[in-house]
Amino acid sequence: MKENEMIFGLRAVIETLRAGKEIDKILIRRGEPQSELYKELLEALRGRDITLRRIPQEGLDRLTRKNHQGVIAFLPAVEYQRLEDIIPRVYEEGRNPFVVLLDGVTDVRNFGAIARTCECAGVDAIVIPTHGSVSVNADAMKTSAGALNILPVCREKSINHTIHFLQASGLKVIATAAQAADNYTTVDCNGPLAIVMGAEDTGVAAENLRICDHIVGIPQFGSINSLNVSVASSILIYEVVRQRMA
Amino acid sequence: MKENEMIFGLRAVIETLRAGKEIDKILIRRGEPQSELYKELLEALRGRDITLRRIPQEGLDRLTRKNHQGVIAFLPAVEYQRLEDIIPRVYEEGRNPFVVLLDGVTDVRNFGAIARTCECAGVDAIVIPTHGSVSVNADAMKTSAGALNILPVCREKSINHTIHFLQASGLKVIATAAQAADNYTTVDCNGPLAIVMGAEDTGVAAENLRICDHIVGIPQFGSINSLNVSVASSILIYEVVRQRMA
Repeated sequence: MKENEMIFGLRAVIETLRAGKEIDKILIRRGEPQSELYKELLEALRGRDITLRRIPQEGLDRLTRKNHQGVIAFLPAVEYQRLEDIIPRVYEEGRNPFVVLLDGVTDVRNFGAIARTCECAGVDAIVIPTHGSVSVNADAMKTSAGALNILPVCREKSINHTIHFLQASGLKVIATAAQAADNYTTVDCNGPLAIVMGAEDTGVAAENLRICDHIVGIPQFGSINSLNVSVASSILIYEVVRQRMA
Repeated sequence: MKENEMIFGLRAVIETLRAGKEIDKILIRRGEPQSELYKELLEALRGRDITLRRIPQEGLDRLTRKNHQGVIAFLPAVEYQRLEDIIPRVYEEGRNPFVVLLDGVTDVRNFGAIARTCECAGVDAIVIPTHGSVSVNADAMKTSAGALNILPVCREKSINHTIHFLQASGLKVIATAAQAADNYTTVDCNGPLAIVMGAEDTGVAAENLRICDHIVGIPQFGSINSLNVSVASSILIYEVVRQRMA
């Protein structure tokens, strides 16, 4: 993370929050006194979904040589966008929305690789959850070959709510699962569509699988039976492209 | 590279060569005297396609603490197989051969990722050239999730000759190129088939493109126009699977 993606000091962080700007996370010196300013920070954080972590002074010193005054906030490398803005805009352009949701993908290289394919395939937005997932950091950006500068990225508190929102917006939501009965090529992908890809180890969460319109799998014939999640995403994304071009 | 994948000393290397075993490359101390044994080594190397490099004593010392006697040979991490054995075997099993050729892919992680997809998709063999390409090292093995222990890997001196050999064996050979006119989904992939994927920067070499039966591209709709080679491979490989299952 470059230093110009950090802001320092209680006052500056509070003002950034009050301006409604996105912050990825805030690190605060362990043992920071409960001053008036500190209480103002907690007040400004209320209702915002931002991680606040207390770490030793030396941890903060390692991150920057600037005068951090005990508080460092990390700005996201990209400006996250809102699905509520993107979906209507795509419809207005006379196109069928195509969204990719990542349910707990934790490897930033996989995230970057998926974003790269999404950008190439003309996907309208990629969605990551606020917690327990990747964020747009330097490694993700690099692996994406710059795609993360172009492709709209949305951060949502709940993938489950997002699936409901997409369905209410007319999108068919397809999830992938290793042991799914249906081959991914059997689902009609011509209309408004979202694909949900799961975490590298556990796949799509059960409560999210339950509400999806289809659960599909990619046939495998070897012994290892473990397609990489970015490869599996690419295969599904380009099946959508194939069907839409046919 | 683990130490048990090296052999040390002129005599041992000569015997290994005489036994017809595979060697990836040989490092020899710069200034090694032109002894009788040294001449025997050159003799044993004649007609073999093995890289011989002269490096300073300290370079050899850094690679092992064992008594290398000025010569280290690297054994391949897997036993390379021969396409001449694999193709007839697949036909005998009543199946259509499906081979993936890498024409100058240099990133071992891409190689490992492609091998992983090949193994999952039931590809019969992956072909790499002897020079100017990847080899099966620890990084490739790791990225492949073990696929390189299972999937047959062939090392061929000339991709051009290999394409001719595959065509003579009844395989249709399809190459990919960024600016190809034909969409990859328009080619019939049901018969015996080989796919040629190009180097990350330059793609498939012109002299190889020229002799392929089809040159196809993957449609792209974004701004970066640069699918990763392992992603592009996966999309093509699974298009073959899709057509064959349809």
